[in-house]
Amino acid sequence: MVMRLYGFSRSSSTWRVRIGLALKGIEVETVTVDVRPVAREQDAVGYERVNPARQVPALEWEEDGETRTLSQSMAILQYLEQTHPRPPLWPSDAYARARATQLAELVNAGIQPLQNNRVLGRLEERGVDPSAWAKLHIERGLAALELMARDGAGDFLLGDAPMVPDLYAVPQLHNARKYGIDVAHFSTLARCAAACLALPAFSNTHPDAVKT
Amino acid sequence: MVMRLYGFSRSSSTWRVRIGLALKGIEVETVTVDVRPVAREQDAVGYERVNPARQVPALEWEEDGETRTLSQSMAILQYLEQTHPRPPLWPSDAYARARATQLAELVNAGIQPLQNNRVLGRLEERGVDPSAWAKLHIERGLAALELMARDGAGDFLLGDAPMVPDLYAVPQLHNARKYGIDVAHFSTLARCAAACLALPAFSNTHPDAVKT
Repeated sequence: MVMRLYGFSRSSSTWRVRIGLALKGIEVETVTVDVRPVAREQDAVGYERVNPARQVPALEWEEDGETRTLSQSMAILQYLEQTHPRPPLWPSDAYARARATQLAELVNAGIQPLQNNRVLGRLEERGVDPSAWAKLHIERGLAALELMARDGAGDFLLGDAPMVPDLYAVPQLHNARKYGIDVAHFSTLARCAAACLALPAFSNTHPDAVKT
Repeated sequence: MVMRLYGFSRSSSTWRVRIGLALKGIEVETVTVDVRPVAREQDAVGYERVNPARQVPALEWEEDGETRTLSQSMAILQYLEQTHPRPPLWPSDAYARARATQLAELVNAGIQPLQNNRVLGRLEERGVDPSAWAKLHIERGLAALELMARDGAGDFLLGDAPMVPDLYAVPQLHNARKYGIDVAHFSTLARCAAACLALPAFSNTHPDAVKT
């Protein structure tokens, strides 16, 4: 069973899943869905069969004679965690586990939805400066994440190994830099991101390191 | 150990947690944080100690001599699920479990962040019609959710008992009505929401049924 990952190099949500797959040593085929406004391949006929929400990433595989699909990075990572528990992306203690999800959701539901390409395009059509909008929401979200992460962080956001909050923070910090945000201001996040990017699972899956 | 739920009657994210607590029979103290633009109590001095992101809901309790807090509805519900497993909010099979998260995230990360009060206020300041913006994103999100949920639904979105997707869909459909969206168009979602609202865990926690 080889799984297919539908995604795009520069999609931060896809990058989260690439990191998770790499950390767990799961090899997948990759299918490029160019979500840039000039291409909009997620709107092509047929992609709605993979993901009716027409977003990346999506994971697809055959099992028990049927094609199975999953979208939404949190759902995909939760599935990978349950089917490939080692190394863990979530701590085992219930409270620590929920705190890990909380940090990841602060990016997943709190920042990224407000600065994805499709939303920024709609804002621009309505006369709103998309870069200023993205910058505002990324800065506010990262400031909250920094405050929440500071106490529990070690080399990585939850201690001495990369876990699910790192998978969300590193791509979001990468996007922050694109909008001219000085990420050194978020010292815990910046330090942990540097530790992450020293690992092949992060550096080999970086948008600049993958083809499409 | 009595937990405190910081939230607001009309916050759809808080309502999700109220439903989860009610289904599992967990009694909590409630602390009102009026997040309406006229009040903005989430910005009051002191609330950042509960949630540095200044959002509701947040759950707080004392354990092992320390004050513990959780924010983000997905993190709170995951914690309740692990500490109070019955009745389950997620199926046990790994794929079914991830699909449940996927449907919930479609609301949590795909719709609600684009139509919360704070974001709509910022849009209005920038000359964008907030109601038209909210309507567009709720309609698109619910259309995708309807397509994804149709095949697996029974009386409820995942079969014969309310689970985590119902906790996200019902408050989102309530918001949809506020913007004049005809939810009957999303026939599976509307049918399952009606079944949910016949249960006390949903009807007794409805924004119109709770004081603040």
